[in-house]
Amino acid sequence: MCANSIGKQFKITTFGESHGGAIGVVIDGCPAGVSVTEDDINAALEKRRPDGSVSSTPRREPDRGYLISGVFNGKTTGAPVTVIIKNEDARSEDYETVSEYFRPGHADFTYHHKYGGLNDPRGGGRSSGRETACRVAAGAVARAFLAPLKLDLFAHTVQIGSIKTTIFERTAIESSPLKCADRAAEESMLRLIDGCKDSGDSIGGMVELQILNVPVGLGEPVFDRLDARLAYAIMGIPAVKGVDIGEGFAVASAYGSENNDQMSDNRFLSNHAGGIQGGISNGQPVVLRAAVKPTPSISKMQRTVTKNGENAEVNVAGRYDVCIVPRIVPVIEAMAWITLADFVMTRPGPGL
Amino acid sequence: MCANSIGKQFKITTFGESHGGAIGVVIDGCPAGVSVTEDDINAALEKRRPDGSVSSTPRREPDRGYLISGVFNGKTTGAPVTVIIKNEDARSEDYETVSEYFRPGHADFTYHHKYGGLNDPRGGGRSSGRETACRVAAGAVARAFLAPLKLDLFAHTVQIGSIKTTIFERTAIESSPLKCADRAAEESMLRLIDGCKDSGDSIGGMVELQILNVPVGLGEPVFDRLDARLAYAIMGIPAVKGVDIGEGFAVASAYGSENNDQMSDNRFLSNHAGGIQGGISNGQPVVLRAAVKPTPSISKMQRTVTKNGENAEVNVAGRYDVCIVPRIVPVIEAMAWITLADFVMTRPGPGL
Amino acid sequence: MCANSIGKQFKITTFGESHGGAIGVVIDGCPAGVSVTEDDINAALEKRRPDGSVSSTPRREPDRGYLISGVFNGKTTGAPVTVIIKNEDARSEDYETVSEYFRPGHADFTYHHKYGGLNDPRGGGRSSGRETACRVAAGAVARAFLAPLKLDLFAHTVQIGSIKTTIFERTAIESSPLKCADRAAEESMLRLIDGCKDSGDSIGGMVELQILNVPVGLGEPVFDRLDARLAYAIMGIPAVKGVDIGEGFAVASAYGSENNDQMSDNRFLSNHAGGIQGGISNGQPVVLRAAVKPTPSISKMQRTVTKNGENAEVNVAGRYDVCIVPRIVPVIEAMAWITLADFVMTRPGPGL
Amino acid sequence: MCANSIGKQFKITTFGESHGGAIGVVIDGCPAGVSVTEDDINAALEKRRPDGSVSSTPRREPDRGYLISGVFNGKTTGAPVTVIIKNEDARSEDYETVSEYFRPGHADFTYHHKYGGLNDPRGGGRSSGRETACRVAAGAVARAFLAPLKLDLFAHTVQIGSIKTTIFERTAIESSPLKCADRAAEESMLRLIDGCKDSGDSIGGMVELQILNVPVGLGEPVFDRLDARLAYAIMGIPAVKGVDIGEGFAVASAYGSENNDQMSDNRFLSNHAGGIQGGISNGQPVVLRAAVKPTPSISKMQRTVTKNGENAEVNVAGRYDVCIVPRIVPVIEAMAWITLADFVMTRPGPGL
Repeated sequence: MCANSIGKQFKITTFGESHGGAIGVVIDGCPAGVSVTEDDINAALEKRRPDGSVSSTPRREPDRGYLISGVFNGKTTGAPVTVIIKNEDARSEDYETVSEYFRPGHADFTYHHKYGGLNDPRGGGRSSGRETACRVAAGAVARAFLAPLKLDLFAHTVQIGSIKTTIFERTAIESSPLKCADRAAEESMLRLIDGCKDSGDSIGGMVELQILNVPVGLGEPVFDRLDARLAYAIMGIPAVKGVDIGEGFAVASAYGSENNDQMSDNRFLSNHAGGIQGGISNGQPVVLRAAVKPTPSISKMQRTVTKNGENAEVNVAGRYDVCIVPRIVPVIEAMAWITLADFVMTRPGPGL
Repeated sequence: MCANSIGKQFKITTFGESHGGAIGVVIDGCPAGVSVTEDDINAALEKRRPDGSVSSTPRREPDRGYLISGVFNGKTTGAPVTVIIKNEDARSEDYETVSEYFRPGHADFTYHHKYGGLNDPRGGGRSSGRETACRVAAGAVARAFLAPLKLDLFAHTVQIGSIKTTIFERTAIESSPLKCADRAAEESMLRLIDGCKDSGDSIGGMVELQILNVPVGLGEPVFDRLDARLAYAIMGIPAVKGVDIGEGFAVASAYGSENNDQMSDNRFLSNHAGGIQGGISNGQPVVLRAAVKPTPSISKMQRTVTKNGENAEVNVAGRYDVCIVPRIVPVIEAMAWITLADFVMTRPGPGL
Repeated sequence: MCANSIGKQFKITTFGESHGGAIGVVIDGCPAGVSVTEDDINAALEKRRPDGSVSSTPRREPDRGYLISGVFNGKTTGAPVTVIIKNEDARSEDYETVSEYFRPGHADFTYHHKYGGLNDPRGGGRSSGRETACRVAAGAVARAFLAPLKLDLFAHTVQIGSIKTTIFERTAIESSPLKCADRAAEESMLRLIDGCKDSGDSIGGMVELQILNVPVGLGEPVFDRLDARLAYAIMGIPAVKGVDIGEGFAVASAYGSENNDQMSDNRFLSNHAGGIQGGISNGQPVVLRAAVKPTPSISKMQRTVTKNGENAEVNVAGRYDVCIVPRIVPVIEAMAWITLADFVMTRPGPGL
Repeated sequence: MCANSIGKQFKITTFGESHGGAIGVVIDGCPAGVSVTEDDINAALEKRRPDGSVSSTPRREPDRGYLISGVFNGKTTGAPVTVIIKNEDARSEDYETVSEYFRPGHADFTYHHKYGGLNDPRGGGRSSGRETACRVAAGAVARAFLAPLKLDLFAHTVQIGSIKTTIFERTAIESSPLKCADRAAEESMLRLIDGCKDSGDSIGGMVELQILNVPVGLGEPVFDRLDARLAYAIMGIPAVKGVDIGEGFAVASAYGSENNDQMSDNRFLSNHAGGIQGGISNGQPVVLRAAVKPTPSISKMQRTVTKNGENAEVNVAGRYDVCIVPRIVPVIEAMAWITLADFVMTRPGPGL
């Protein structure tokens, strides 16, 4: 199955392995006339870059994106837009020591069996989180394309381990190492992460996505509903294990009389639906949460097997993120931009 | 956007409105040689049929499916398989009285605005849950196609309101009015539903899907991951507001050392991942949960607006389900069969 | 491969076999607000109907199309538009006598081998020209969708056997039994067809398609060029064995200096390109020709083999067209409408 | 419309402009285990390279392809295969002098209007024939993928101007500057081309494609017929204006009794159908012809208009091909390999 593309009308295709020559993305369907520069793309990539803080890998990934097609004189031309990111700091030796083992919690086992042992295992190869840099680059183009719509879209960390945010101070997010809107909670989160680092462990968390100023009418029944497509795009990010929208899992114990969003004066009186009804945006904020698992690379002895089927114990040393959550934040934003761009391309028809 | 098809290689297209002449589904990509009969399809439709019990609408939907193409002498021919279901018990008048209002919690508002007021509003038209009967019919064909693989797939109700199951007795599910594996819990659930009926309210719930005997290797990175595609298919069912896999939302507070599935003797020692790693099945049971919102049709006065923008109060009378959860169960099963069929069609290549 | 759909944004899916319960078509992606009626569809089907004249089968196919979804109060709703055509005059016995043989020139041999003998062979089953009625029905919807553009599109017979038209009287086409714009040539053509009928033979021909009032800019490089997509759609009609555009095959012996279309006063001075440059319409008439083979069903003894591999001689009796060309004319028109509709749905983007 | 990809299961996406940083291609859907090297790709590119002879541009295009993803240890991994070709010899100044004019016969006019003047015009930009190098690179991968099937596929020049080949000596093709199987005819063709060069003109021609050892059953009715898909792929090559199959345009004047391929002893007694019946390969050679127009770049004064709408005369100086036909030959081969690869990926199903 051709599975390295997403989108029907604003379609991105990613390619490349963690330790190959380069990774990259081709965007097909972006119309002519979108103002976008290499700097826009690199600013987005910067948000995903490990910042060297406690939470993330000390691997320095310059992650410099090069725009090699589809943009001329600062504007898209209607031809495919391609971004290439070279792999400059790939120290294969770190990874090669473990290449004979299936690292617990990683995709090593499934890739090995699916591809008959032929996949590139260095640094996780195609399954590496590094591939998501391509999605972030494409997200920057999607965002530029959507700029005229004045959508306001952001994601932020709302939980690390059992610590949840209680305050929402939006201006805090950008400078926050954990992309968190609650500075007090973040301090506790950082201490928790420090503790994990000391003990060689990792920790999960939760990210919330909000999209404001959404026009009414995005989403295409019956299968390309806005909620279904966001779930597809975000559940497709490595480490995400759950997605819910609006009241989400809380609807299971809700009554209709409390869950329905009533209206008055042409406004909704609540937003339990999270901005989506019948799979179509209703103009209210779209609110979505994604559960992010703890990164599987930990410095503890774990039981596994080798490719030859022998039992082994492995300590996955290397330069890894203790908590991947803040680096997932820009990827979720990117996938949301890309998904929205796809819907905005849907033309109502010649007479409308 | 062409959005009434799902699947790339085993593709279904549904059509039809709740109160139009008929609804139906075309399945394109089903190979020749699959043994499937109209009875198989009608047996599946029977599971989705309202059973007249307290939980569901008293509308009698015979929901008889007619196989009108693609099957010859009891086997698929390789041509499109089409099932038509006539709308025989459509009492439009029940619905027409409310057609001037946007029913709270329904898709009336978004459909009206997206389609410029041109959508067929009778009974919800295209957004009616009735459309899911087509998915169930297609699911029966997908299941027949996959029969040689001996997959074991089932869904069941694990929560209604705040009542959760604690016992799993699989044999109880089939005859259970709520598709529940815990008879004691079901009694409480039925009482809760009775109470909702008396008070004119509705109630939500949770469904769990399990897929056993899954071969290793289903799922196509990087975007058509098995988890992403299941999320897409199941979040695309009306009323579903959240999907998670394996430990799901619990991963947010988990440590890597507890969440990783270690291995020994070529077996996994746990299944926190829910059978999917790197988007690919690892041979363990696939476990997924879907949160189902309370049906929005309730017999209580609710505030809303008319299509002309005037405030109104509405009591959505009619023949509706008090709790839609058990009727979602076979739809989730169908979408899982359809999703799996799509992946099984992926050919590894001529030399493999 | 899912191969019963065509189009990316205005997508049609046909289903059904010649002698099954019904044939039909689902159109996904047609926007809301298109005025179209069952009468429009039946008027188009009427053009494809055998007229009982010398050229075509005496089989009476009422070919009545029923609009069963997607149209409400005379306008499309944005939901899939479905047309069903019942098979009412299917005399299977005519065909069953030959079902053990591979009819020369038909698809019997390839269908049998491709589908492992499981295809429905009655009347050609899925490979019957009858399937093209579904395309004609969809073409009527595409035409209605494009009505605001004032495109002027028509096809006509320009050759039967070695008789070619030399006069172009457009008003003659509609009432012409052979859809021919040259009445004098048509008389000769009819005599030729009469002769074929007497001798139990059949004869091929050529159809020309013209599209006038084409806006500049239809066609999507680099693969969905307007010429490539028209070739795909029209070569995909049974019996078509060649397609060329503008000067077509004559370019092989042309010099650049004579083949280039020069410009002056913002107009082209010639139309050798047939209205398409770089795969994009240039505003001049699109001119295309399709070569149609003689229908393979003839009343002459022919050598063939049975499904068991035994040599045989067969005389394909039955109710067949002596010359299929005039019945291909509306199918070519339909495929052109459908192809154009797909391109018109392409949105340039939010800012343009 | 996303139009820079072709194929459903073995899908290629090309990107890049003639005078941008690089051009390239991503192949998604190529299974793991295909033996392919950068040398294989460069050997294919070499066939498309201008050879400096009279027929082609003196521009030296090293056209070196770099395999940057999807191949590990000499075999494909199942991840996207990407080839990048840098633009090293792009002398923009040659082209910039004409950038204010619409070059007659080129895509300048249509690209300019379709993309609102935003397209990259240097050297034709995206519409340059240079983009076809990407198709040739992808064709090399498709060919490697299909190697186990032992298909024998080749194209050759059968006509230049009014000079047609009469002899078929297959071994002559490879070393022939015009990819011609008839050395005597080629001498005349070369003289004709020389004359064109002297007079500043260009000349068209015809290419024939043959595919031998084709398995029965390739092609997917009803729309992805083998003939329709080959027509789509080959009509989508710049400069191709017509495609026919088997007897092709000659069927227009043929009788059924002479055009049908009769059978005896389980073999076909003729191949008028060109190896395809009902859109499916029948095991006989697939034979197809493509008409190639004279390259529009000529050193003669031609009338045109500027982007501002002023009349002008232009002499398209530069380094161009006098006859593009031999350079189209490997592109036709590549598109055929790519099309066949797509069909071979179609899986009949789990039980077959």
